[in-house]
Amino acid sequence: MSGNTIGRLFCVTTFGESHGAALGAVVDGCPPGLELAAEDLQADLELRRTGTSQYTSQRREPDAVNILSGVFEGKTTGAPIGLVVENTDQRSRDYDRIRDRFRPGHADYTYQQKYGFRDYRGGGRSSARITVATVAAGAIARKYLRERLGITARGWLSRMGAIDLDPVDPAAAYQNPFFSPDPSRIQELEDYIWRLRKQGDSVGARVTAVASNVPPGLGEPMFDRIDADLAHAMMGINAAKAVEIGDGVAVASQLGSEHRDELTPTGFASNHAGGTLGGITSGQDLVVHVALKPTSSIQVPGSTIDTAGNPVEIVTTGRHDPCVGLRAVPIVEAMLLIVLMDHYLRHRAQCGDVVSPTPVITRPR
Amino acid sequence: MSGNTIGRLFCVTTFGESHGAALGAVVDGCPPGLELAAEDLQADLELRRTGTSQYTSQRREPDAVNILSGVFEGKTTGAPIGLVVENTDQRSRDYDRIRDRFRPGHADYTYQQKYGFRDYRGGGRSSARITVATVAAGAIARKYLRERLGITARGWLSRMGAIDLDPVDPAAAYQNPFFSPDPSRIQELEDYIWRLRKQGDSVGARVTAVASNVPPGLGEPMFDRIDADLAHAMMGINAAKAVEIGDGVAVASQLGSEHRDELTPTGFASNHAGGTLGGITSGQDLVVHVALKPTSSIQVPGSTIDTAGNPVEIVTTGRHDPCVGLRAVPIVEAMLLIVLMDHYLRHRAQCGDVVSPTPVITRPR
Amino acid sequence: MSGNTIGRLFCVTTFGESHGAALGAVVDGCPPGLELAAEDLQADLELRRTGTSQYTSQRREPDAVNILSGVFEGKTTGAPIGLVVENTDQRSRDYDRIRDRFRPGHADYTYQQKYGFRDYRGGGRSSARITVATVAAGAIARKYLRERLGITARGWLSRMGAIDLDPVDPAAAYQNPFFSPDPSRIQELEDYIWRLRKQGDSVGARVTAVASNVPPGLGEPMFDRIDADLAHAMMGINAAKAVEIGDGVAVASQLGSEHRDELTPTGFASNHAGGTLGGITSGQDLVVHVALKPTSSIQVPGSTIDTAGNPVEIVTTGRHDPCVGLRAVPIVEAMLLIVLMDHYLRHRAQCGDVVSPTPVITRPR
Amino acid sequence: MSGNTIGRLFCVTTFGESHGAALGAVVDGCPPGLELAAEDLQADLELRRTGTSQYTSQRREPDAVNILSGVFEGKTTGAPIGLVVENTDQRSRDYDRIRDRFRPGHADYTYQQKYGFRDYRGGGRSSARITVATVAAGAIARKYLRERLGITARGWLSRMGAIDLDPVDPAAAYQNPFFSPDPSRIQELEDYIWRLRKQGDSVGARVTAVASNVPPGLGEPMFDRIDADLAHAMMGINAAKAVEIGDGVAVASQLGSEHRDELTPTGFASNHAGGTLGGITSGQDLVVHVALKPTSSIQVPGSTIDTAGNPVEIVTTGRHDPCVGLRAVPIVEAMLLIVLMDHYLRHRAQCGDVVSPTPVITRPR
Repeated sequence: MSGNTIGRLFCVTTFGESHGAALGAVVDGCPPGLELAAEDLQADLELRRTGTSQYTSQRREPDAVNILSGVFEGKTTGAPIGLVVENTDQRSRDYDRIRDRFRPGHADYTYQQKYGFRDYRGGGRSSARITVATVAAGAIARKYLRERLGITARGWLSRMGAIDLDPVDPAAAYQNPFFSPDPSRIQELEDYIWRLRKQGDSVGARVTAVASNVPPGLGEPMFDRIDADLAHAMMGINAAKAVEIGDGVAVASQLGSEHRDELTPTGFASNHAGGTLGGITSGQDLVVHVALKPTSSIQVPGSTIDTAGNPVEIVTTGRHDPCVGLRAVPIVEAMLLIVLMDHYLRHRAQCGDVVSPTPVITRPR
Repeated sequence: MSGNTIGRLFCVTTFGESHGAALGAVVDGCPPGLELAAEDLQADLELRRTGTSQYTSQRREPDAVNILSGVFEGKTTGAPIGLVVENTDQRSRDYDRIRDRFRPGHADYTYQQKYGFRDYRGGGRSSARITVATVAAGAIARKYLRERLGITARGWLSRMGAIDLDPVDPAAAYQNPFFSPDPSRIQELEDYIWRLRKQGDSVGARVTAVASNVPPGLGEPMFDRIDADLAHAMMGINAAKAVEIGDGVAVASQLGSEHRDELTPTGFASNHAGGTLGGITSGQDLVVHVALKPTSSIQVPGSTIDTAGNPVEIVTTGRHDPCVGLRAVPIVEAMLLIVLMDHYLRHRAQCGDVVSPTPVITRPR
Repeated sequence: MSGNTIGRLFCVTTFGESHGAALGAVVDGCPPGLELAAEDLQADLELRRTGTSQYTSQRREPDAVNILSGVFEGKTTGAPIGLVVENTDQRSRDYDRIRDRFRPGHADYTYQQKYGFRDYRGGGRSSARITVATVAAGAIARKYLRERLGITARGWLSRMGAIDLDPVDPAAAYQNPFFSPDPSRIQELEDYIWRLRKQGDSVGARVTAVASNVPPGLGEPMFDRIDADLAHAMMGINAAKAVEIGDGVAVASQLGSEHRDELTPTGFASNHAGGTLGGITSGQDLVVHVALKPTSSIQVPGSTIDTAGNPVEIVTTGRHDPCVGLRAVPIVEAMLLIVLMDHYLRHRAQCGDVVSPTPVITRPR
Repeated sequence: MSGNTIGRLFCVTTFGESHGAALGAVVDGCPPGLELAAEDLQADLELRRTGTSQYTSQRREPDAVNILSGVFEGKTTGAPIGLVVENTDQRSRDYDRIRDRFRPGHADYTYQQKYGFRDYRGGGRSSARITVATVAAGAIARKYLRERLGITARGWLSRMGAIDLDPVDPAAAYQNPFFSPDPSRIQELEDYIWRLRKQGDSVGARVTAVASNVPPGLGEPMFDRIDADLAHAMMGINAAKAVEIGDGVAVASQLGSEHRDELTPTGFASNHAGGTLGGITSGQDLVVHVALKPTSSIQVPGSTIDTAGNPVEIVTTGRHDPCVGLRAVPIVEAMLLIVLMDHYLRHRAQCGDVVSPTPVITRPR
């Protein structure tokens, strides 16, 4: 397969551009018998939708998903599930100004050099808008994993610029436009965003996601470890620049006696590893962090070149997010769920009849 | 394919265990006509070899690689290249003590739960020893990329515990057992390691690798971006817990005006992105950082359970590295080269006849 | 990927059911810069369309294809091409009678046992209707291969029941509803079909397809030989029961001195091999034959069981083809083109810079 | 992956050339816990070994297989299984004469044009000798399928030249050098071969293989149907020119009323389909036929060109089989088993928890 499919057995192939006719996905390999309707996907789509708060892009898209195949009498049949979401609020004229110049920090220059020309309308295929399809696909994985295995995934904003957010109340993250897991700091985030807006600037962020009730055993060493496939999926999200598992970059400074999670009959004594050992889930919470760069579309003027290679100045207008991280939580969750679903199927394939003599130990955070 | 193959077109499949008969790899998809001999691989293997300094494991292995196929009259034929390295210095008795108990921080428990039993000799397949095969395969990619495209890759230790190392002299990294790019700090590193050894403890590290002269255009969005595939490859290295591209985790605190790399006719003005935009190489240096956890095999006693689930104490003996990061540089380089090679072929496949009207801009760091 | 994607680099993923909302495909990996419009696909779709003659199913579908993505300003961008064809003439009530019983010769029983239940409307995913998506995808390959490499593919009906048809005038095959390459025998075919219709029976067929101007070198031994991948693609067509390359089954009776195609400076002296040696194209015409079983939906009563396992009688009504082979020509061509396209890209990836010292010899049939 | 790996989950990657140091395979994805020793593979290797009768090539190779990894304490661990068989009886001088000329019917010309040069010793990678690795891998699948699922596979020579052989006693096929399933016709086969030998000519053959006790449900429509993957695997065997499933090419002349296999509560009434409907196994015997072309290495002089394109004459000497079909039975069986094993795992992945309300009907031939 080429680059627009993710997953070996639960295969998600996406298509579509920011200002094209539609976005979509084909989800192949979903087990049969799962009850599924468009509404099941809509909730997740709603979470990543733009235009719903004043802190994100003002592009207003209903993001109504249409299931074209793979479901019969309300249940998945095992056939590929075709999903389509129409684009309705394109304003391509906004982009005429960037038609012949490359926005710094965007993929304009690299798409031009790779493909020889580019769909300049809203970034074309490189736009964050295309994650609509990923989120829709992730919602199918979410439903299967929750209903059949009790696995849940939850994400939140753990940092925006200099503001670090603790998961005081992770459930609260879905109740505010910042996905802040600490409701007491929303005012601070609001103030920060408004200040940025005034400066015409943007800021980076960090999103954390946790999957709970993951059975031990998922992951395929050597190369397709669960953490390696998570890293692949997460770094494939627009603007991602770092992926951390468990303690992440901090491990470089840790001692062995500090990092290793001791085992007891009632569970692990800690979870520095983030739920994976040797690339295989341990049964503990699977913990992943993604660092996202600041939106490159800002109103601060900058230098660039045009398609002929001449120097020009650029100021990006259009409808942009001051912090892409604010909409990344559902995308990170979707990726986490897709990877887990794929690995659940891969594990069942090779080890479906394994019975370990060792009891599964309980799973603290 | 299952989990022991990496690459879509330049496919590296590895096999072997720490204390098995041999380690090996099959490299499929290598272009024909490349001059290749065992000696070409030996140099890279030498860099990751144990027992060559007092700061790494004392297991002494010649790591002599044998090319079994795919080369005729000194040149690659296009057929799969079979590589085998024999194990000669196994001391499996060392591991009898851990036969029925799980070492904290190791993959013992997860392998047991996934597969129902495990090869306990030196970690079996989960041992860092198996990276011998990856390094051998990476050396083939290195030779092709250098000879045909002028691409080079170079890595160094950028952190060990609390010690941060700047790339004062990257070439010096190959001249000292710490892979330190700053020769002036070797004494400091030595002292630190000896202190750790006395405590029976270990420490984490961070390795940085940079590929230069990478042409623009490599990477296959959406999911197989160059950075996503790098993240996959790097997180697949034993002990890796974080992968960063360019500014990495720091982007979460950056402003858009600070992060975006402006373009000029003579090159990019900076390289915060680490050489990739939208998942496609920009022609700048490709920069990746990997955080590696401290060795879990330490002599500090710890708590764990046995295979029946009962609590037991454990002290790991055997021949271990106090800092796995010290041997990770050649492995990180190998992974970087394998990913680049694969993407060079993928790019040539889809875009082999593309001519961009835009000149390639020069490439500062 | 799961089972609904074909191709390693030119990846076609299809979705949709006979009586679902729509059929579609995502074509990933198409080189950028190819001029493409819906009309380019429509011609091929027209050839396989039902209801256009009295010799095929009377289901009337416009089969209008919609390109949802991957094309900008009239050219492919390198991004995935989303294709959708709406179903408009479903008559699902026709199928209520087979809801709880398995039609002999159909996939009803096997889908039921694999997935636990099935979409019984018109065969669901197992219907030949879903080849609409394959044909649309194949049309993209056709355009690229013709415009960039001069490769053409042409098919015809080479047998229907006891009637063998010689390629007297292959171009004529597109001018008659039987795809007969011998216009002089159309009356014979008509009479035969009417006789079958009267009996409520159906008949098998054989389709032959030939690709011309194929460059030497396409195919990836060992397992992904060009002939192996053709066999995979062709046997994946509904009703296919045999695939032959060149002389096909006849080789079992040939002598070596008879079969081997001698080489001369001006070309091969014959083409028993069908254009491939060692799984790599020789530059001669690539010749493939596909045997297709008779339509299983016939009005001759038959015995079967119901979903509870009880014996029942069955008579299939609905709108069926008396000979599925009559519509298979465009499908066989599409598969041939998809395989060639994929292998052209695969070859360019590994061997894009190979220069053979040996001249390419000319290519007689 | 490139072209030397077969299987999606049970992945067999082979390497090696006719006159190289060794042949080998890596089998990745084998379920853990299977008892496995080299002797388990040796029996199958023995069946395809040359030099054991006067009717095949006189090259004498012990074909002793070495398991390098993936087995611990006598059982598969789930890690990749590395297999190596050394070449010992190379006589490369035999091939100096063909160094600069292309043998008609062989892959010499196509390898030269694809890769720019070729390993001319015994055909290099295109030699039938490399099927040693496939057979070894197939033996692992055979053991798992038999022990865990009761599936068996058995093949025989069903045609040699003009001699058609009926499966009077399939078990007898392993007892004679022709793999004839009809012991009464061995003399006839012997006479035929001796006559060919005298003429310096060779002849084609047809091999039939049958898998029994296959559960219903294996196969992944659309493209990875069980029959499509079988066709891929079988056409990937050296010299294969046609693959038939069940009635095969004969279906082109059959009526629907004749071909369709009726269902009864006690089983199917016939097996024209060859055990698959809609690309999914029905529970009946899976029946596949492979037509193999005559050996191209014959002593009848022929015309060809040299590497510079000049006309030359050629007479192939060396140690060749007068009928490659005589050694193809174990190879066809191995491919059948590898495909079944892969699809068993794929089915378990997606449908591991499916319970069909319909009873499995019994399975006559």
